[in-house]
Amino acid sequence: MRKKVAVQGLGFVGLAMATVLANSKNNKGESLFEVTGIDVPNRDDFYQKINKGILPFKTEDKTFEIELKRAITDYKNFHATSDISFYKEAEVVVCDVHLSIEKKSFDDYKNYELHDSPFKKAITTLGQTVSANCLVLVETTVPPGFTRNVVYPILKKEFLARGIITEPLLAHSYERVMPGKDYLSSIRSYYRTFSGISPLSREKVREFLSLFIEVEKYPLREEASPEASELAKVLENSYRAMNIAFIYEWTLLAEKLGINLFSVIQGIKNRNTHNNIMKPGFGVGGYCLTKDSLLAQWSSDNICKEPVDLQFSLLALKINDLMPLHSVDLISKQRSLKNLKLALLGVSYREDVGDTRFSPSEVFVGECLKLGANVSAHDPYIDHWDEMPLVPRINEFSELQNFETVVLGTRHKCYLEMSAIDWVKCMAPNTLVVDAFDILDDAKIVYLLRNNIQVIGVGKGHISSLLES
Amino acid sequence: MRKKVAVQGLGFVGLAMATVLANSKNNKGESLFEVTGIDVPNRDDFYQKINKGILPFKTEDKTFEIELKRAITDYKNFHATSDISFYKEAEVVVCDVHLSIEKKSFDDYKNYELHDSPFKKAITTLGQTVSANCLVLVETTVPPGFTRNVVYPILKKEFLARGIITEPLLAHSYERVMPGKDYLSSIRSYYRTFSGISPLSREKVREFLSLFIEVEKYPLREEASPEASELAKVLENSYRAMNIAFIYEWTLLAEKLGINLFSVIQGIKNRNTHNNIMKPGFGVGGYCLTKDSLLAQWSSDNICKEPVDLQFSLLALKINDLMPLHSVDLISKQRSLKNLKLALLGVSYREDVGDTRFSPSEVFVGECLKLGANVSAHDPYIDHWDEMPLVPRINEFSELQNFETVVLGTRHKCYLEMSAIDWVKCMAPNTLVVDAFDILDDAKIVYLLRNNIQVIGVGKGHISSLLES
Repeated sequence: MRKKVAVQGLGFVGLAMATVLANSKNNKGESLFEVTGIDVPNRDDFYQKINKGILPFKTEDKTFEIELKRAITDYKNFHATSDISFYKEAEVVVCDVHLSIEKKSFDDYKNYELHDSPFKKAITTLGQTVSANCLVLVETTVPPGFTRNVVYPILKKEFLARGIITEPLLAHSYERVMPGKDYLSSIRSYYRTFSGISPLSREKVREFLSLFIEVEKYPLREEASPEASELAKVLENSYRAMNIAFIYEWTLLAEKLGINLFSVIQGIKNRNTHNNIMKPGFGVGGYCLTKDSLLAQWSSDNICKEPVDLQFSLLALKINDLMPLHSVDLISKQRSLKNLKLALLGVSYREDVGDTRFSPSEVFVGECLKLGANVSAHDPYIDHWDEMPLVPRINEFSELQNFETVVLGTRHKCYLEMSAIDWVKCMAPNTLVVDAFDILDDAKIVYLLRNNIQVIGVGKGHISSLLES
Repeated sequence: MRKKVAVQGLGFVGLAMATVLANSKNNKGESLFEVTGIDVPNRDDFYQKINKGILPFKTEDKTFEIELKRAITDYKNFHATSDISFYKEAEVVVCDVHLSIEKKSFDDYKNYELHDSPFKKAITTLGQTVSANCLVLVETTVPPGFTRNVVYPILKKEFLARGIITEPLLAHSYERVMPGKDYLSSIRSYYRTFSGISPLSREKVREFLSLFIEVEKYPLREEASPEASELAKVLENSYRAMNIAFIYEWTLLAEKLGINLFSVIQGIKNRNTHNNIMKPGFGVGGYCLTKDSLLAQWSSDNICKEPVDLQFSLLALKINDLMPLHSVDLISKQRSLKNLKLALLGVSYREDVGDTRFSPSEVFVGECLKLGANVSAHDPYIDHWDEMPLVPRINEFSELQNFETVVLGTRHKCYLEMSAIDWVKCMAPNTLVVDAFDILDDAKIVYLLRNNIQVIGVGKGHISSLLES
């Protein structure tokens, strides 16, 4: 008997999760789950697309669409809908509904707003529909304490309104989905931390996760409380954000001292106690690293009796948010931004992926426009830049001839693979190239310099002395 | 022919360096160096001790004293003296003279003072004595840019005063000495970064380092400028300090949410991108992590044309400096500090080492005394606590019977090896135990709780729920 599972929310995580579940089998090769993906009404095109086996977004993971199609067409155990009646029969609901937090001011990171209405509404729907013994597994990244203090009371209240006195089975476990070429395998074949609000909830979620995660290789990690599982997620993202912010601060100093910081870091990484030190770059983007510390601050402000000021982690967010402005500074020391014809190569926040959410490119372009530059952008993974629809698209490298300044902002393979000769060919003499993410090595830079291309770079304070040696 | 080498400054690093050099041999088993260790005058006892082969401080590295004695007695190629005339014949001088920076105020970390007079005086002495072709290798941790902007002008000036027009051979390379059981091998068998102010200086220092470092296994890393080598040292220490400060901030939040942060961190460390995340503890001590970011700030303020405010790294120093006060807070929530009989176990800042420099124990005890507690301290590695000579010493665990509160502050083996039964035996009923550095595991804590010992701990928000499950 296939276990009926509903996935609530079909975004980047939910749809991947649903696809993984629909493709999970037991030893005999039989499908384990019958999966319904449920999202909000009035998105008929979206559901139709998915129900034909077509992904509603681009990805580098070729297996994703193949597995989606297989689930829909061959196994017939997955469909997408807005019909909430499917929750009734689910043994498990995996909640992947978005919870966002908005920074109100760059000057005061404690001035934020949690947008939790859609999430709470989704949980209310579950409370009104699921059976008393359905496991509700929250996978959304939430503030620590949210499952117990927000989700549980909603479920309990709706249960009581229906005369259900059984305690809800409620758990939290966080995904570590990596959009990119290992999209689906980052769900199946990776470590998972989980907990539940009761021993029975913990038992149920362990049983469920064990069915589709490669637990022999990646043993599940059970925490004593949902707070611990929730905190783990925001802590691990904050750790990364903090490490990036740290190196950005030192980038500024190293540049002023004429140092090649990439070389210094390579030397430091030799120590295994230091091998996770980050490298300088254009900035931090994406949905997690740019906000997860704020979710923790929310917990402190709203759940803890005595709040803790996460000043260090919030300062890290701020440093990262402002990081793209450093590339603007670097340019402005060489050329006036006013009417500057500027080409940005790389719009996505991450290499070899088409994802523009909170991309540093947005902050960078915004500032350049403010200073009067004429900005166009190139990115092979982005057909339409949703956040900046008015920025003209560059389609071919040959168009770079028309620009005075070229900024390399994302470590896409296509930029890394360009030879120095390729670069010189497509640019006009005297072009200023800003290598904002270590895309050019020293040999390429020397070739460019010798061919009348001016080069500066984030973390590359040594460039001006390269022709001396 | 043995190469004549002088080591300037016989502290924790200089004496180890001298010992390693004196024990270095070529393929034929012949000593490579004739080493003179030179320090300031009026320390006759100190020199006599060393020249008898006796170490002037305690160490866990048993080989250190053996090698020192061997160099003095068998090889007869090392002696300690204050006689600066020995610099004249040196082919290489390794400068290990202390450079300290003082924090003037915990409220403003940009208010600091660099105490560089002894260091500059030492360099002046070299400028007045060494031969024109002597390599001066600065091993001291200095602000980035110091070798070029401070050391070089002094040497140059003194050379010119002597009519020497040759450019000084001047280099920087930093040690990564780890006091403890691998003291000497942390010099011989570890990665080294170096640079020099000229191609010839770089060539000379590479040649010198290659003679006594295991370079086949740990290839030397040459940087383009001394600034890069200097920055690398303070950057890698700041990286560690920053990671500790970060986890301290989250410790406060996790405790308030009832979380066992050690368990959460264990789960996060599974990711190899996150395996260097630090653990909560009592505080940060020692000579490097507590100040190196400030050296970088000095460079910014004194060498860079446009200063960079290292606000993030300086905030990390502050958070770490204040960290021991959290243990005071934890106690004060349970008991009044006024007249409290308090035993601190662990005075050294580092496990299994007798080193009290900038130990968190000092800040902790200072605060407890201010609040009226009667504090005694135990540490098997410390006979005399130089910084706090008035704190009575506890010699035996059995004396703990006389205390109301026992704080575990250092991860010495002797504390980790105590069984729960041992702990209960040596303490009076109702004793409050503060596990400030994860010295007790949950099983031990449960045993203590069941035997009328109260336990709280840094990062251990879950203790109060331990008896429930």
